[in-house]
Amino acid sequence: MLTENRTSSDFRHQVKIFADDDVMPLDCGAGLAALGVAYRTYGHLNAARNNAILVCHALTGDQYVAETHPLTGKPGWWESLIGPGRMLDTNRYFVICSNVLGSCMGTSGPGSLNPQTGQVYGLDFPVITIGDMVRAQKKLIDALGIAQLFAVIGGSMGGMQVLEWAASYPDSVFAAVPIATASRHSAQNIAFHEVGRQAIMADPDWRGGKYQEQGVIPRRGLAVARMAAHVTYMSEGALHEKFGRALQQGDRPSYHFAADFQVESYLHHQGSSFVERFDANSYLYLTRAMDYFDLAAAHGGNLAAAFSGSKTRFCVVSFTSDWLFPTPESRALVKALNAVAGNVSFVEIDSDRGHDSFLLDLPEFDKILQGFIEGCASIRGLAPGDNSQGGMPRHGE
Amino acid sequence: MLTENRTSSDFRHQVKIFADDDVMPLDCGAGLAALGVAYRTYGHLNAARNNAILVCHALTGDQYVAETHPLTGKPGWWESLIGPGRMLDTNRYFVICSNVLGSCMGTSGPGSLNPQTGQVYGLDFPVITIGDMVRAQKKLIDALGIAQLFAVIGGSMGGMQVLEWAASYPDSVFAAVPIATASRHSAQNIAFHEVGRQAIMADPDWRGGKYQEQGVIPRRGLAVARMAAHVTYMSEGALHEKFGRALQQGDRPSYHFAADFQVESYLHHQGSSFVERFDANSYLYLTRAMDYFDLAAAHGGNLAAAFSGSKTRFCVVSFTSDWLFPTPESRALVKALNAVAGNVSFVEIDSDRGHDSFLLDLPEFDKILQGFIEGCASIRGLAPGDNSQGGMPRHGE
Repeated sequence: MLTENRTSSDFRHQVKIFADDDVMPLDCGAGLAALGVAYRTYGHLNAARNNAILVCHALTGDQYVAETHPLTGKPGWWESLIGPGRMLDTNRYFVICSNVLGSCMGTSGPGSLNPQTGQVYGLDFPVITIGDMVRAQKKLIDALGIAQLFAVIGGSMGGMQVLEWAASYPDSVFAAVPIATASRHSAQNIAFHEVGRQAIMADPDWRGGKYQEQGVIPRRGLAVARMAAHVTYMSEGALHEKFGRALQQGDRPSYHFAADFQVESYLHHQGSSFVERFDANSYLYLTRAMDYFDLAAAHGGNLAAAFSGSKTRFCVVSFTSDWLFPTPESRALVKALNAVAGNVSFVEIDSDRGHDSFLLDLPEFDKILQGFIEGCASIRGLAPGDNSQGGMPRHGE
Repeated sequence: MLTENRTSSDFRHQVKIFADDDVMPLDCGAGLAALGVAYRTYGHLNAARNNAILVCHALTGDQYVAETHPLTGKPGWWESLIGPGRMLDTNRYFVICSNVLGSCMGTSGPGSLNPQTGQVYGLDFPVITIGDMVRAQKKLIDALGIAQLFAVIGGSMGGMQVLEWAASYPDSVFAAVPIATASRHSAQNIAFHEVGRQAIMADPDWRGGKYQEQGVIPRRGLAVARMAAHVTYMSEGALHEKFGRALQQGDRPSYHFAADFQVESYLHHQGSSFVERFDANSYLYLTRAMDYFDLAAAHGGNLAAAFSGSKTRFCVVSFTSDWLFPTPESRALVKALNAVAGNVSFVEIDSDRGHDSFLLDLPEFDKILQGFIEGCASIRGLAPGDNSQGGMPRHGE
C-alpha cells in the first residue's frame, strides 16, 4: 500500500545513475541530466558477453519480470518464462529488464526530482518517446559492457521498444522478438489513450500534475483510465467466458448503480489496485510515448527503410483475438522486413484472451519462442550453460 | 447552450402527461406516477389507424428524428429517411418518435420533478429497464388510439426496444426492424458502460447525483464518458480513414498533453458538445437499462421463446464493421426466430463506419429498409398516400 506522497525513490531499486554532465538528448529537443535507469538482472553475463537478453516491459509493467513484485507481492510478470531451466534459462542467458524512461519504478520520470530545482518534475519532465526509452536502455547496456544483445524481447509497448532497438541499433541486436505490437500506434489506440489521459486530468486531485507536492493522488481519474484500458486488453470472448452477464448476487438485478454485474466488480478491482502501484503522471507520459511511435514516419514514410541492411533475426508474434494490436499490424511489419530481405519468421497464435495473451502462459507461445531462441542460440554459438565464467552478479532468483 | 440549472421542463416539448393515479409498474418493483412521455409525430394517422410507424431512438438520441433539434440546431437524426416522399413517406405513414423513459428531453427521468417531494428526482428516480421504456411507449400508443403499429424500427438501444415490443406486445407490431442490436448486452458492452458511469460518478460535481439542485454539472466526467463511448461507435478503419495519425499542426509533434493529434481534438469536441445537450444522470439510467437487457433471461433462458407464435415480420440488420453489436448478435436473433418458424429476413450490410452506420445515409441500408417496408405495406394493404383522412395533426415538417 502506498502512502500519499510516495515517490519512486522510496523504494530501494537497483538503479544505474549516470553523471550529471552526461546529458541524454531527447527526441523533443531537450536533454535529460542525472538520468537514472532502474533494472534487474537474472543469470550471469558470460565471458564473451554475448548471452544477454533484454526484456522490454509494457505500458504498466516494470523491471520485476522474474521475481516477486516489491509493491504487490505478486510473481514477476514473466516469471514462468525466466529462471533456471526455464525457457529463458538463467543458467544460460543473462536476462536484463529495465524500468522504462518516464515510468515510476526507479527510472527517471515525472515523479523524479528535477536536479535543477530540487522539486518533483511533474509536467516539467520532458515529453518522451519510445526512441528516448531505448536510448536510455542503450546507455545501461553500454554501461554493462555489452556490445551486442543476444536478443531483445517484448510485447505491446515492449514490442515497440524491440522494433526501435532493431531500427536504431541494428548491430547491437542479434535477435528481436516483437510481440503483439505495431510499427505505429493506430488512431483508435490514440483515442483510447486520450480517454484515459482526460480521465486523469479531469480529476481535481491531479492538480495540473502537481499532486505529489500537494499530498494527494488523482485516484479516481487514474482508476477510470485503467478501467477503460483494461477493457481493451481483453477480448470480448474472454470477458464473456470469464464473467458473461453473471450478477454479483443471485439471479435478479439489484437495480442500482453500484457494481451489480461481476464484470463491473472486476473492473473496479483493476482500477483500484492499479492506483496503489502506478503513478498518474507516468501514465500520461508513457501513453503519449506510445501515441508518438511511428517507425515509418521516422524513416521517410517507408517502414522497410527502418530495417534496411539489418542482420537481426526477427520473430514476429501476434494473437488472433488481440483487437488492440491486431494481426494486420504484425503482417505489415513482416511485409516491410521481407521488402529488405530481412530474416523474419511470423506466427499468429490462436488465443481467445485478447491483447493480454502475451502475458499469459500459453503453450503454443512458449513453444514458438523457445524454438526461435534455441535456433538463434545455436547460430550464435551459445552452448547450454556456457555462462559459468561470467562476472556479472545474479539477482532476483 | 444550456444553463447550469436546466431541467427538461425548461423546453416546451410535446408531452403526454398521464394521470397522477395512473401509476405505471416498473420491472424493479416500484411504480411511476405522473408519467410524462415527450414525443413528435410526422404525417397523419389514417382512418384505419394502421399506418403508424414507431421509431425508437438510441442511447443519446431523442424524439427529434425528422426535424431540426431544438438545442443543437442540427437536422433530425434520421431526417434523410423520414418526410414527404422519403423512404418513411409521411404522406403515407404516421411516424411517431418518443423520448425514452429515463432520458432528458421531456419524458420522465432523473431530471424530472418527483411529484411526491416537489424536488428533482436525481438518483431517487427508480432504475428502469428497456421493458419499462417500451411500457411507457405502449401507454402513449394506446393514448393515441393505435391498436397495432404498422412497424417498429430502431438501432442500437432503439433496436432493443424493437425486440422488447415484439416480445411483449406481439399483436401490436405488424413489422419489426431491429438494427445493429442484440438480444442482450454483452460483458464487454457492460464494461464500457461502467467505465462511462464511473467517469461521471468520479466527478466531484456529480454530487451524488444532486448536481441540479446544487447548480453544477459534472461536465468533465460526462465528457470523458462520451469520449470513451464514442470510440466504440466507430470502427478502427473509420478512425484511421478520417484521422489516421494526422497532427493538429504541421508534421512534427508538439510534445505536450493538449490535443496534438486530430483524433484527440475530435474526441474533445464530441465530449464537450455532448455535455451541452445531455444529462449526466440520464446517461447513468439509460446505460444501466441497456446493461440489464436480456430477452432470453426474461423467457426462461430461451431466446426463441420470446418470439413463440409471433406473426410479426422481422427484418434484422447488422453492419460488417460494427464491433459493439457485431453480426453474430444479429445471427443469434435470426436463429431464435427461425426456431419458432418466425417470419424473418436478415441482412448484414457492408460498411466500414462501425456501429454508427445505422445513423448514416448508406444506400444499401436505405434500399433494404425500403424494400422491406414496401413489401409489408403491400401485405398490410396500405396503398401509397392513403392517410389523407387521418385525424392526427402533422408536426415538425
